[in-house]
Amino acid sequence: MQMANSSEILEHVLRSPPQSPHPITYQWLLPNAKGLDNFLSMWNSRVPSEQDAYPTPPPSPGTDEGPALNTSSQDPNAMPSAPVHELSIFTAATESFTQKNTNCSIAESLKRFEPIMARGKDMGLNVRAYISVALGCPYEGPNVDPHKVAELAVSLLEMGADEISVADTTGMGTAPKTAELLKTLNAAGVDKSDLALHFHDTYGQALVNTVVALEHGIRTFDSAVGGLGGCPFSPGATGNVATEDLVHLLHSLGLKTGVNIEQVAEIGEWISQELGRANESRAGKATLAQMRKERQ
Amino acid sequence: MQMANSSEILEHVLRSPPQSPHPITYQWLLPNAKGLDNFLSMWNSRVPSEQDAYPTPPPSPGTDEGPALNTSSQDPNAMPSAPVHELSIFTAATESFTQKNTNCSIAESLKRFEPIMARGKDMGLNVRAYISVALGCPYEGPNVDPHKVAELAVSLLEMGADEISVADTTGMGTAPKTAELLKTLNAAGVDKSDLALHFHDTYGQALVNTVVALEHGIRTFDSAVGGLGGCPFSPGATGNVATEDLVHLLHSLGLKTGVNIEQVAEIGEWISQELGRANESRAGKATLAQMRKERQ
Repeated sequence: MQMANSSEILEHVLRSPPQSPHPITYQWLLPNAKGLDNFLSMWNSRVPSEQDAYPTPPPSPGTDEGPALNTSSQDPNAMPSAPVHELSIFTAATESFTQKNTNCSIAESLKRFEPIMARGKDMGLNVRAYISVALGCPYEGPNVDPHKVAELAVSLLEMGADEISVADTTGMGTAPKTAELLKTLNAAGVDKSDLALHFHDTYGQALVNTVVALEHGIRTFDSAVGGLGGCPFSPGATGNVATEDLVHLLHSLGLKTGVNIEQVAEIGEWISQELGRANESRAGKATLAQMRKERQ
Repeated sequence: MQMANSSEILEHVLRSPPQSPHPITYQWLLPNAKGLDNFLSMWNSRVPSEQDAYPTPPPSPGTDEGPALNTSSQDPNAMPSAPVHELSIFTAATESFTQKNTNCSIAESLKRFEPIMARGKDMGLNVRAYISVALGCPYEGPNVDPHKVAELAVSLLEMGADEISVADTTGMGTAPKTAELLKTLNAAGVDKSDLALHFHDTYGQALVNTVVALEHGIRTFDSAVGGLGGCPFSPGATGNVATEDLVHLLHSLGLKTGVNIEQVAEIGEWISQELGRANESRAGKATLAQMRKERQ
């Protein structure tokens, strides 16, 4: 799940943590050091009782491993879990995209991450790093060098990133390109358990690419209910792959997600209406149609 | 490509055969013997000069093999090809669907096909048989017996069908179910070259299922530009998988289709507008956005 780094949303989540049977991880996208300062001032102003709900920072700064943020059971009958918070940073696999998106080179963007990553670690917060346009760039075209992506992933992990989300921002990814990228990442020593894949369904290939990633051992995938999302820097790019479509695929393959697809379909329809957008999830719309039929 | 058996369309195509660099096959859906009578009266009323453009019927009725209808070269620089005509009939994999759809049992529907098939053969026309709801039925649910589908396919081929289109009318098909069905068809002796697959993208799984079918050696797939289509007997079912999405997938896998995706994307957008429907092809919309961007 992705969310804008809105102070209001952060404040709300920190002051009234949503309870859920499964722990929810909130990722707070920090475009730069100012974003981090904003986050930290909000984070540090939590009232003490709420702070108790969160793990305390590790005793000594600079420790390589954060505390176990998620200590709750996966048992659906377990007590509601407090949310988990992570910091998110993003760079891109092409110089053109990085320049137009963040006005700096890829090397400079890595440099900017160092203090964010260090302070995040000091606070015991996991850091997730996105590599945008990993399978196609609006400026440089569909043939992004997978070795560049692998090099960036290794640099980010060495800097202390806890997870790398490899993003097909433009939806130009195909099955063969996804396979080639995952092989290149593997050859560069990136462990599949440190990777998430982030597909956009712009060309309708997100689920095919997901199957390829599953075959390569990837088990973490980004998605958005109703296919919300998009990228202001990638003209014509549509939203993230719909959570409902992804969950329907995973369930069809016998994988367990803990997600109730009917409830997600209802949420997708609700939020699409709230935002005045078309519900872009095929499985979501079909699930709702089936539910209506069964109620008749 | 699917088309309603409209007398007007048939008349138009017969009187003014569209010219194309690749031969186009028109499939005329004949729900019953009356449909065949209508088709034949139109077919036989072609003016002689147009009849010359078509292969003559085989010399003796009852021959097992029709003439080679498509004798034109696949060379895109070749002379325009005359269209090819096929008869289409359809039955379904479940008794409930067949009853509600055609008011007869599956066995009765096969009985009805015999004279259609025989007369089609006499005229030198190939016959394509659809098996609807092969991967999920609106009345009997997602678990349709693959052995029933295989049994029907064998019966239809024995009756003289030239091709079987196995249709996931409801879009309930999944990768494992598609694989199981294709294995069952193979075990029943159905040659993969006699099979076409016909997916609906209702749950967003059409391309994933297509990849499974490609892996099983299937090379013929039905689709509709802009994801048009649907099924009046399958409530909530959306259109056929979009031709643009299918072609984008096939090209991404290095397969050759002879289809220009930009031109198909423009046709999909045009016909969607003409029909007042949303363009349901993701690759179509993304291709058009990319074309607009390149023109800027």
